[in-house]
Amino acid sequence: MGVVVKLPEPQEPSASLAPLVALVGEDMEHVNRIILDRARSNVELIPELARHLIDSGGKRLRPMLTIASAKLCGYEGGDSHVRLAASVEFMHTATLLHDDVVDESSLRRGKIAARLLWGNEASVLVGDYLLGQAFKMMVDVGSLGALRILSDAAAIIAEGEVMQLTTAHNTETTEDDYLAVIDAKTAALFAAATEVGAVIAERPKSEAAALRSYGRNLGLAFQLVDDALDYSGEQSKLGKSVGDDFRDGKITLPVVLCYRRGNAEERAFWERTLKDGDIGENDLAHAIDLIARHNALADTMDRARHYGAIARDALAIFPNSEIKAALLEAIAFSVGRPY
Amino acid sequence: MGVVVKLPEPQEPSASLAPLVALVGEDMEHVNRIILDRARSNVELIPELARHLIDSGGKRLRPMLTIASAKLCGYEGGDSHVRLAASVEFMHTATLLHDDVVDESSLRRGKIAARLLWGNEASVLVGDYLLGQAFKMMVDVGSLGALRILSDAAAIIAEGEVMQLTTAHNTETTEDDYLAVIDAKTAALFAAATEVGAVIAERPKSEAAALRSYGRNLGLAFQLVDDALDYSGEQSKLGKSVGDDFRDGKITLPVVLCYRRGNAEERAFWERTLKDGDIGENDLAHAIDLIARHNALADTMDRARHYGAIARDALAIFPNSEIKAALLEAIAFSVGRPY
Repeated sequence: MGVVVKLPEPQEPSASLAPLVALVGEDMEHVNRIILDRARSNVELIPELARHLIDSGGKRLRPMLTIASAKLCGYEGGDSHVRLAASVEFMHTATLLHDDVVDESSLRRGKIAARLLWGNEASVLVGDYLLGQAFKMMVDVGSLGALRILSDAAAIIAEGEVMQLTTAHNTETTEDDYLAVIDAKTAALFAAATEVGAVIAERPKSEAAALRSYGRNLGLAFQLVDDALDYSGEQSKLGKSVGDDFRDGKITLPVVLCYRRGNAEERAFWERTLKDGDIGENDLAHAIDLIARHNALADTMDRARHYGAIARDALAIFPNSEIKAALLEAIAFSVGRPY
Repeated sequence: MGVVVKLPEPQEPSASLAPLVALVGEDMEHVNRIILDRARSNVELIPELARHLIDSGGKRLRPMLTIASAKLCGYEGGDSHVRLAASVEFMHTATLLHDDVVDESSLRRGKIAARLLWGNEASVLVGDYLLGQAFKMMVDVGSLGALRILSDAAAIIAEGEVMQLTTAHNTETTEDDYLAVIDAKTAALFAAATEVGAVIAERPKSEAAALRSYGRNLGLAFQLVDDALDYSGEQSKLGKSVGDDFRDGKITLPVVLCYRRGNAEERAFWERTLKDGDIGENDLAHAIDLIARHNALADTMDRARHYGAIARDALAIFPNSEIKAALLEAIAFSVGRPY
């Protein structure tokens, strides 16, 4: 009889954004120039605060998706894709600024949140300014189709943020409630960012719908992983403090699952901490412990993979190409990313 | 020798908004229906908060100006003017919501500010939602010209608000600085509201420019009077507490004039109260007293009349009509209003 040796699981070569970054790199430089240019203003505070956000970087995933979607659809001969990509990033940045005010966050992308340096007022108003600039850029592109998609997204994102406000501290939030929130506050912009690529390339509705579905489901997966990482990632990699959601009383899927699977004592713990906001020194550690015990993190990642699979299938109607492969790898990256 | 009897000054029949209200009344009912309809959402908080603002009314001057401008330009046969008017009012309402957060106001249009009832978070996010709805409505109208004008205005308004933030508490603000702020934060929306009327009526540039000038200068006059009333009006008529600007450390023209005309002791008073925010019980009364002593209120009203005169001349190129007369009377009302 042989001895069963348990081998380490074969290490899958980890997915990365590198192929996507390489393919859209040149256009993204153009996007970055537009962003810096449009964040200019004679009112000093505006470029100062905008620069703070822009320098702190982030992955710039949304504008990359707009560029890549336009390329996938064979868009050529203009710079509409670049200008819409910059608009998308401005919409996202405006949302971050307003989010920080709402959440009273102290870190954003690993840097001190703008609201702490310049005050809530500046964050609200510079957010408004960036949103105004985003719409100006969209209008300059002149595609009513793209304008409709992006202005719809703007309203839906805000609706999602309000919805999140009303689910906050509510431990009885269901998975469906949670999904409705992230569908609006995160997936809507991903969906718009990818759909406009097909629209400016004047491709048939089926391709616009496919890219919309890809963007939406990628966005859902992305947010699920983000919410999982808040109970697991390392602060330095994540660019925000672990436990932010816990301290803010935000009800995310790991908590939804854990609350529902828990016993009366555990539910009382979640109610005290998330509902009543009575959080002591060891409570975050206990929360992480409960989430592990109920497998809530692994199951959240499983849900993310489910939406990732839908995103993958959505792209099936497009012929194989380098850019399609890069978009598919972006899904794998998003559901597997450690940060 | 006869005795000189000082007669009371002849009472000028006071100008009113009534003719304007009468002429645009039917269309404004349509605007109000759209506003209520567009403030709907499955997210309860949104219609609730929007209703609070809408019910508190206000004069709805901006959307009335859009309707009247379109009528002056002979716009017929569609409802674009009504939908743009609703967009303009949503943009304005969104600004009010964000303003209240920035100013930490406690009253708005005589009602408790939304932020105190629902929190700053809700004010920020519902403001964003209304702005998103405003853009959706504009996109539905489908006029890229109108979209350009209104999205430009959105960016400029936000820029003006940030500018106001940086002039706040700065007693050395000049009249020019002050004008730059109100030009952006108030006059820009008035200018856009009137200009789009000509644009959707497809009138020549000269008429669009005339209406833009009318709107801009009316807006400047309107804001000047508003700022004067903050040191004079009665709270119940004004719909806000007298002295709000004083308490917020806002530097408006009455203060700019008074500070520059004052002696060292008076300047020290303004610095203590507005710059350092050290405001005692009798300080508002003393401020009002100083403003009266330096004739700063009367001179602020004079400046308002100056811009009113420019607005009046801007309309000269239009043939006489009922609607033109109503627009002219709106100027007289704005510079003479006691509330």
